Amino acid sequence: MIAVLKNGVTEAQKNNLVKWFRSQNLDVHISEGKMQTVIGLIGDTSKVDIDMLNGLEIIESVTRISDPFKCANRRFHPNDTVIEAGEGDNKVKIGGGHFAIIAGPCSVESEEQIISVAKDVKASGAKLLRGGAFKPRTSPYDFQGLRGEGLELLRTARKETGLPIVTEIMSTSHLDMFRDVDIIQVGARNMQNFELLRELGRLRQPILLKRGLATTLKELLMSAEYIMAEGNERVILCERGIRSFDTYTRNVLDLAAVPMLKELSHLPVIVDPSHATGKSRLVKPMAMAAVAAGSDGLMIEVHNDPPHALSDGAQSLTPVQFDEVARKIRTILSIIND
Amino acid sequence: MIAVLKNGVTEAQKNNLVKWFRSQNLDVHISEGKMQTVIGLIGDTSKVDIDMLNGLEIIESVTRISDPFKCANRRFHPNDTVIEAGEGDNKVKIGGGHFAIIAGPCSVESEEQIISVAKDVKASGAKLLRGGAFKPRTSPYDFQGLRGEGLELLRTARKETGLPIVTEIMSTSHLDMFRDVDIIQVGARNMQNFELLRELGRLRQPILLKRGLATTLKELLMSAEYIMAEGNERVILCERGIRSFDTYTRNVLDLAAVPMLKELSHLPVIVDPSHATGKSRLVKPMAMAAVAAGSDGLMIEVHNDPPHALSDGAQSLTPVQFDEVARKIRTILSIIND
Amino acid sequence: MIAVLKNGVTEAQKNNLVKWFRSQNLDVHISEGKMQTVIGLIGDTSKVDIDMLNGLEIIESVTRISDPFKCANRRFHPNDTVIEAGEGDNKVKIGGGHFAIIAGPCSVESEEQIISVAKDVKASGAKLLRGGAFKPRTSPYDFQGLRGEGLELLRTARKETGLPIVTEIMSTSHLDMFRDVDIIQVGARNMQNFELLRELGRLRQPILLKRGLATTLKELLMSAEYIMAEGNERVILCERGIRSFDTYTRNVLDLAAVPMLKELSHLPVIVDPSHATGKSRLVKPMAMAAVAAGSDGLMIEVHNDPPHALSDGAQSLTPVQFDEVARKIRTILSIIND
Amino acid sequence: MIAVLKNGVTEAQKNNLVKWFRSQNLDVHISEGKMQTVIGLIGDTSKVDIDMLNGLEIIESVTRISDPFKCANRRFHPNDTVIEAGEGDNKVKIGGGHFAIIAGPCSVESEEQIISVAKDVKASGAKLLRGGAFKPRTSPYDFQGLRGEGLELLRTARKETGLPIVTEIMSTSHLDMFRDVDIIQVGARNMQNFELLRELGRLRQPILLKRGLATTLKELLMSAEYIMAEGNERVILCERGIRSFDTYTRNVLDLAAVPMLKELSHLPVIVDPSHATGKSRLVKPMAMAAVAAGSDGLMIEVHNDPPHALSDGAQSLTPVQFDEVARKIRTILSIIND
Repeated sequence: MIAVLKNGVTEAQKNNLVKWFRSQNLDVHISEGKMQTVIGLIGDTSKVDIDMLNGLEIIESVTRISDPFKCANRRFHPNDTVIEAGEGDNKVKIGGGHFAIIAGPCSVESEEQIISVAKDVKASGAKLLRGGAFKPRTSPYDFQGLRGEGLELLRTARKETGLPIVTEIMSTSHLDMFRDVDIIQVGARNMQNFELLRELGRLRQPILLKRGLATTLKELLMSAEYIMAEGNERVILCERGIRSFDTYTRNVLDLAAVPMLKELSHLPVIVDPSHATGKSRLVKPMAMAAVAAGSDGLMIEVHNDPPHALSDGAQSLTPVQFDEVARKIRTILSIIND
Repeated sequence: MIAVLKNGVTEAQKNNLVKWFRSQNLDVHISEGKMQTVIGLIGDTSKVDIDMLNGLEIIESVTRISDPFKCANRRFHPNDTVIEAGEGDNKVKIGGGHFAIIAGPCSVESEEQIISVAKDVKASGAKLLRGGAFKPRTSPYDFQGLRGEGLELLRTARKETGLPIVTEIMSTSHLDMFRDVDIIQVGARNMQNFELLRELGRLRQPILLKRGLATTLKELLMSAEYIMAEGNERVILCERGIRSFDTYTRNVLDLAAVPMLKELSHLPVIVDPSHATGKSRLVKPMAMAAVAAGSDGLMIEVHNDPPHALSDGAQSLTPVQFDEVARKIRTILSIIND
Repeated sequence: MIAVLKNGVTEAQKNNLVKWFRSQNLDVHISEGKMQTVIGLIGDTSKVDIDMLNGLEIIESVTRISDPFKCANRRFHPNDTVIEAGEGDNKVKIGGGHFAIIAGPCSVESEEQIISVAKDVKASGAKLLRGGAFKPRTSPYDFQGLRGEGLELLRTARKETGLPIVTEIMSTSHLDMFRDVDIIQVGARNMQNFELLRELGRLRQPILLKRGLATTLKELLMSAEYIMAEGNERVILCERGIRSFDTYTRNVLDLAAVPMLKELSHLPVIVDPSHATGKSRLVKPMAMAAVAAGSDGLMIEVHNDPPHALSDGAQSLTPVQFDEVARKIRTILSIIND
Repeated sequence: MIAVLKNGVTEAQKNNLVKWFRSQNLDVHISEGKMQTVIGLIGDTSKVDIDMLNGLEIIESVTRISDPFKCANRRFHPNDTVIEAGEGDNKVKIGGGHFAIIAGPCSVESEEQIISVAKDVKASGAKLLRGGAFKPRTSPYDFQGLRGEGLELLRTARKETGLPIVTEIMSTSHLDMFRDVDIIQVGARNMQNFELLRELGRLRQPILLKRGLATTLKELLMSAEYIMAEGNERVILCERGIRSFDTYTRNVLDLAAVPMLKELSHLPVIVDPSHATGKSRLVKPMAMAAVAAGSDGLMIEVHNDPPHALSDGAQSLTPVQFDEVARKIRTILSIIND
């Protein structure tokens, strides 16, 4: 951490500041220039409040050199984290060279629908089943999901196919209902719901943490840190598009986030091309691009009957289209790992 | 709502679609051109799922002409909503020509601090006291607020000064603790925490709803709609800066949102210049600009000792600076209402 | 084009408007609802000024249904445009299934440098040589390129290796110097320099048009339209990253723009992963992802000695690294075209 | 400037780097920590290429502490620059406490129009006349301005009313035609057309430099620096809205840029509320807010007959509306300067 002092700071003010830094167990290195004094702080600065420092009258600017995240930081955990979900033959690994596709409908609509899609995506190579039971919708008048009943139908589909299930939680008050969900998803709109993150940190299930619409990579890693600091180190990061000024696609899929996050962190990184683009015809090229960029997995919406889906129909593939995408992905994977 | 059909749609497909629209109680107007068929839908389209329509194979594009929000819509409620908080002599009104300043520290830190600031801001003309008890911080290692104890200190300061209190809620599980808070604030990071919004809709206290970092005005109004659709029509909208590419200020304060929101909605609109800019020296010009733009109130951070504040010190004013800002604001108000 | 009239418009006002629309050779379809009148306009609306219509007092909103670009529009030119550059054995095609890599240093620095890099990238499979002679730099104090001398050195490298050359133009006053450049590049900062675009439309060389930092896909196509409307239909579009709020990468590479642009237009689309990310270690994964997303080519910075490059060293590959990237790209291409 | 070295850098590498820094006339201060070596560079670092340094293999990160702009920097020129335009009785000053309104139509359309508007805005208190002769339009099919003839009409209006004229230049090839324009405007799309900026730096007329759609404040100041470094120190900065994700207004007017730019630079800062919002009904509140935020002037579109304007009609005021805005502004100014 580098602090630049303002012109005209007195010796006494400077000494007070240095004393305070030392009380925080930081090594202090001072460079005096003609126009500026620069103080270098070395040690564990992750707990130093940069806003507070910036507020001090004698300080011109403060710059963090080292990253404020520790549990999620590759510097301290050089090896890739591998996350396991599911049991027995259906156990699946994500990260550290293990690639997995999570597929299924945007919303769980009926027993027939979810079982049919689950069988189809399993046959095409998906390793986990996704399906929304609690749906965050911009409008209170849109379909909000089957909620508890949807979770029940996901359990039925898991029993039928063996596929571990991935579904989104929207409130700490629903935690009890999620005790046996294989991977709990935190959506883009709740990824800085810190009370929820903290509660999820006390569970032992893997958490799939989606990037928010205007979240920096550092903030995404800090949200992962909220979960990990409570003891749950099983976090999967998910790039799903960020907001921009263009309107042809719903969001901008930031694929450079994949290699960048993997450089910064040891956690697995997957990509959701369905929500990112909002158009089913862009899912195939973006899924292929995500794999080529090095992602550890994909989350893809598949619906047995997209035009009548109760939500997000525009971005879902049919099972036949998904089969083709999954085939292409396997071929690309074989080259990447080459 | 306007739907444009793709080339080559059959008569049968078109008739099916029209039949479905009519079953939704919509008037259907068809314009057949050489290259395109355009269908105009008139009636209550707020419950029509635009994503689902976009997903239909026969549709090229769908455009919503009317707004999807109803309770918050000025079209259906032409008069300004006036929101009251507090009791007796300390009752305050916001909206419909009533202007109010909410002021106080970012975080409640101690009884001495909160009472001292409360007295100072009251003396300078603030009508409500703000103070964070539960603090959403990007890092789990930063100060998270005094939580329940902070709420208790706010109650003490209210007793001491009479000022109604405004403080942020972060989880549905804290609702019981907020039963006697005068105005409950929803922060930028939870403003699409729809489960929380719904619960707040069942309360009768006013809700101060902050705009998210990358939230459109329509989405802000839809979040207000979540609260109002449950029965609580006492919502105050708050512009507090949106995220951009520049780094000199923390966020971009979107002041045109003030007149725009007031045109779209009857709800009061206030501005938080402190969080928007992140720099205390920008609070005064931005507070003045917000008033000139027509805002119904301001939310300003004031700290008795900004450099040592446990959070957000950089953006807090001293009581003396606040007094000067409040004085300027009164002068501008006198012109605006001229 | 859809125009929605305001409530309370008189019959006379409406009739005047309809008469004006008909005078523009548009078919007019009117839908009268209880609360709104909707007018559908069918025909060539590309020359109707949407801002002017929005300004009319009797109009609530105007929405363009059809695209305002014509020459660049795939609707009117269903087949992919194939662009040729260079001569004889060194002739190269881009688009319509023809893929090409453009490689070379950010800036031309010396005869030795440009010839050495040209030979290296040719050996690795690049089909065109890039090199900046005129350099747009944010700071007037940074190296601005060798200018005319740089163009001369590019010609020498072309003579030596046969590779057609691609280089950026920054002003209409330099047009004479660019008469024999094989592909003229328009950079992100000049892509709405309409006077320049118009002049380039009068040439017969291919134009490589880069997307601006905050340019929508529609605006990019409208800039292509400026060139094409003057008669030069040989335009190559280039995605090179857009500006966002994150700071880990320089820009956000918007790879979904590739399939989206190819759907909207018949023009070839290439990707520049070097400028997009600003980090050489991200060039390989993003180059691979761009190919997987369906791009018709790549523009990659290669420098014989990156750490001493006079500009943009951080994002350049060494010839050895480029060789590895080119090899990976060929493997991915073989699958894509599968 | 602060450079952080990577772990494992050898003494020899470090010494080489330090030697190079010293050869650039920089003071070098080294702080050795257990995990990192930090080098502080003090002196004139404005000519050090930060991209080149970032590209060096031994460097982890480089951070500029001081600003890379010099001529525009308030640190070196503490007093406000006051810019004069026009002659005799009609001479006008902008900056350093002098406030001026520039008003007029988006495009010059006819002699009658421009003279009529000029007389109206002068009567209401405008000090300069604006009017577009060369118009940058997104579409080549939209009205492009009367060009040379438009300039002629502006000269006629100046003769008639005495108002100095402000109009936009789009190409270096038009410089001769602009020799007697009182203030030459550079639009948002050309503000990083560095060849144009350099040429304008060789003139002696004031330059009104608009901020680009996705331009940081630093980049805006660097573009001013291009002009000033060539010798023309008469630059007026203009905030006119930046691009965001919301669609209700055309751009987001960043009013905090006004006090921020005035803190960073001694140049005058004005605001264009017409282009920023794209809606005439938002011009009044945003103009008032801009004045309250401390701007040195305003640029406002006024049209004698907005609905029939050939461009940007939606954002123009009528002369009567402008008169009311100008009146409000004077009242606010009287308080600000209080």
